[in-house]
Amino acid sequence: MNEQEKQRFTKQIEFLIEMDKMKNIRRQTRVLHEDRAENDAEHAWHLAMLALVLSEYADEPIDLKTVLATVLIHDIVEIDAGDTYAYDEAGNATKAEREQKAAERLFHMLPDDQGAYMRRLWDAFEAQSTPEARFANSLDRVQPLMLNYCKHGESWLAHGTRQIQVKERMQPVYNGSQVLGDLAMELIRRATEEGLLK
Amino acid sequence: MNEQEKQRFTKQIEFLIEMDKMKNIRRQTRVLHEDRAENDAEHAWHLAMLALVLSEYADEPIDLKTVLATVLIHDIVEIDAGDTYAYDEAGNATKAEREQKAAERLFHMLPDDQGAYMRRLWDAFEAQSTPEARFANSLDRVQPLMLNYCKHGESWLAHGTRQIQVKERMQPVYNGSQVLGDLAMELIRRATEEGLLK
Repeated sequence: MNEQEKQRFTKQIEFLIEMDKMKNIRRQTRVLHEDRAENDAEHAWHLAMLALVLSEYADEPIDLKTVLATVLIHDIVEIDAGDTYAYDEAGNATKAEREQKAAERLFHMLPDDQGAYMRRLWDAFEAQSTPEARFANSLDRVQPLMLNYCKHGESWLAHGTRQIQVKERMQPVYNGSQVLGDLAMELIRRATEEGLLK
Repeated sequence: MNEQEKQRFTKQIEFLIEMDKMKNIRRQTRVLHEDRAENDAEHAWHLAMLALVLSEYADEPIDLKTVLATVLIHDIVEIDAGDTYAYDEAGNATKAEREQKAAERLFHMLPDDQGAYMRRLWDAFEAQSTPEARFANSLDRVQPLMLNYCKHGESWLAHGTRQIQVKERMQPVYNGSQVLGDLAMELIRRATEEGLLK
């Protein structure tokens, strides 16, 4: 390796070590078989598994590799910006600004070409501007709903979450997948019936 | 959806919910910024990030999507078989049999086509029979080494791990990537110099 190649490799390794911090960011969602919150690394892995298994339900043609890359990186800005609960209105008001700053720092840790590639994926996800971003978003919304429902609404009950909030949150699932949108609505219907949502 | 489609979808969702158990399986590796073991879901996510960033160092042409799918699923048999520490000789004697049984059960939860696809990836990983499997294996060996080194050899010191054991464990990294093999040997050299390995 020449000097330039060494620098490139060092940047890549430093980025990957920085990524370990995804394991420290707690979400509101609980894991199913332990009494603890899910973290961002686990969440991203679970979304990638959903992408692998459920890609046939995307309503537009998608490139699966791009969906995988998108779900793997979609939350890394939370390393600096923290997780904002979907139904926390005050937190969501400042979220965009905090995340833009984080994106600046984190994607610039990588060599320019790779940083630009990931930034494009992340921007597309934020703007919901590609079929892959829309399907990734469907997965990102359905996964916590599935866990919450399987965990008897634990985090909904803790936050006093209302049915209408979850319905609104799940509406964009339809932008990526009719089948997953219908699944979301069915889970909300059941959760309401079972008294897990107000 | 007709009955057959519904059955297919139900199998997929049940498999994805079963996958949550990956978050419960502790490895010997420690996460960097908390005092706890890494779990299999976090590990698989981290490997997928390594695959995204380091694919240029694969020595053979690889299909990145296949590498991603491989690292995402490579440890799911541990849901039944548990994690076996790389340097635990007794555990490793029975590992193959336990994991074969787990593979039977878990991949059969999926619709046949998807179960067979994942089983092929997992078999290739176990047999190291494809370029993608070899590169995935390089990542799978280098990632805990990186974390262990960054964490001042915590799990090596706890197990009294010897340099020669780690060197042997890291040798196959060269089957997927010269650059990552060299990185592994450099980290072992430094770890030994710093007294983290016997």
